[in-house]
Amino acid sequence: MSDNSSEKIDPNLRKQVLRMIPYGIHVLTATHGGQVAAATIDWVTQASFEPPMVVCCIRRDSQIYGLVRDSGYSALHPLSEGQKPYAMKFFKNREATATHINGQPYKPGPHDVPLLEEAPAYIVLRKVDQLTQSDHAVVLSEVVDIGLRSASAPRPLLLSDTGWNYGG
Amino acid sequence: MSDNSSEKIDPNLRKQVLRMIPYGIHVLTATHGGQVAAATIDWVTQASFEPPMVVCCIRRDSQIYGLVRDSGYSALHPLSEGQKPYAMKFFKNREATATHINGQPYKPGPHDVPLLEEAPAYIVLRKVDQLTQSDHAVVLSEVVDIGLRSASAPRPLLLSDTGWNYGG
Repeated sequence: MSDNSSEKIDPNLRKQVLRMIPYGIHVLTATHGGQVAAATIDWVTQASFEPPMVVCCIRRDSQIYGLVRDSGYSALHPLSEGQKPYAMKFFKNREATATHINGQPYKPGPHDVPLLEEAPAYIVLRKVDQLTQSDHAVVLSEVVDIGLRSASAPRPLLLSDTGWNYGG
Repeated sequence: MSDNSSEKIDPNLRKQVLRMIPYGIHVLTATHGGQVAAATIDWVTQASFEPPMVVCCIRRDSQIYGLVRDSGYSALHPLSEGQKPYAMKFFKNREATATHINGQPYKPGPHDVPLLEEAPAYIVLRKVDQLTQSDHAVVLSEVVDIGLRSASAPRPLLLSDTGWNYGG
């Protein structure tokens, strides 16, 4: 698959230019076979208008990826500005119960996907297909439900707001 | 593929929540069989660290998509803040010559991909795979070359800077 061309690219140049692509901060949740997981993810884009679809790039070595792959369903939660501390709750999957993930409350939604109660919105996704040639799975999903917990969508939390980097 | 679940979603809710996902503005170029094209695209995300890969979601009814699909190569140009007028030059593919696309100068780069001279940076991509279940092709590509025309990467032009919408 690779002719190693990318290895010839200067690492600093690669970081600078690839980090020009902006990202939001989202929490992805899924459940399968009695397991529940949530993970903070950045690499997300819409991928279709009709039907509405979204691509989520998910680390293949993560627990959440196995649950999304095996159940076929997930919930993507865009966060609002100011929710950086909330995003940090999901950097690692510590403990999940029937009501809380890493201490944060959720309720089961359509297809049992965990809907986080403190996220401003959720997008319920059904996996359509995936590409797995790299360290992240490129998961293409159809949007099957959407919820918004306020009258209008808040300004989203951007990766550039956080001082974190993911990409490059 | 669809059970029409997405048709039950309120269109206003769908727009508000899906538009929480942020995007940059990029110009994608490609050439094949004597044709040259460029198009402004928003739906882009990194998809892998090792090797570095990027996903571009490209309208399947566009000229640029045919050239990317058939040649396997493209150049993604993230724009800098202030380049909104430049981005607008590539909304439609009007005229391409051996030196200009829609009046904007370019030079052939690796694998003959057109490198736009007024874009601050370019990412040369080799197509690895694609998913074509929707109105946009989800094209997964490996990064094979990168260029930056200044000492450091400028702040990128964001969709939210422009007053345009693409998504929802």
